[in-house]
Amino acid sequence: MSEHTNEQTVIDPEGDWQDPETEQIVRQIAYLRQSIDNVDMAIVALLAERFKCTAQVGLLKARAGFEPADYQREEYQLERLRRLALDAGLDPEIAQTYRDFVVEEAKKRHRKIAQEGKDPGVLDIFA
Amino acid sequence: MSEHTNEQTVIDPEGDWQDPETEQIVRQIAYLRQSIDNVDMAIVALLAERFKCTAQVGLLKARAGFEPADYQREEYQLERLRRLALDAGLDPEIAQTYRDFVVEEAKKRHRKIAQEGKDPGVLDIFA
Repeated sequence: MSEHTNEQTVIDPEGDWQDPETEQIVRQIAYLRQSIDNVDMAIVALLAERFKCTAQVGLLKARAGFEPADYQREEYQLERLRRLALDAGLDPEIAQTYRDFVVEEAKKRHRKIAQEGKDPGVLDIFA
Repeated sequence: MSEHTNEQTVIDPEGDWQDPETEQIVRQIAYLRQSIDNVDMAIVALLAERFKCTAQVGLLKARAGFEPADYQREEYQLERLRRLALDAGLDPEIAQTYRDFVVEEAKKRHRKIAQEGKDPGVLDIFA
């Protein structure tokens, strides 16, 4: 049962793949997908920890009357992530896109904390 | 030395912060930033592994003549990430944004592998 259309292929390892070579490929893909899922689980846990940290930073910045932005910090992070990406064999542009993503989310939360003075734990999870 | 302008605050733990409470906040922020940097290091390594996996999947899909898309897989991932996010105390919308980010990057690479038939290792790092 190769559910193969012009638009997608549903790769079901339990399916009845006629061709032995195709069946082997399907098994290999299922094996790799398990690893991808494991990586995602770890990254979700790490992102949760990261936003707990950035929520705390946001709260501290608001308490001290600091601005949300710190371009020196951003520059440091950019250079470091680029170096780490190259070391890990990751396209540095992907590391940059990752950073844009987390910084944007963190900034959204920081602004809300500073403006509304709400509990950061709640903000972190539901804001 | 509080480099505090209307636009940003450069938070330097080595700086000469006059107010003791502010100095303590600066130390706390530096402590949290170290954790953020550690999380980023772990995530960069995991992203590198993830793209190694997705590059392999892309190569296998191309070899079997499969379409890049598999909406059943996407639906599974979405539901799972949402559940994992809630379990980790992470805003599910952030997990969704994370997924959009990696899927988009993975798809870009899959398309190139299928279209150009190049070595996926090279594609993964430089494409």
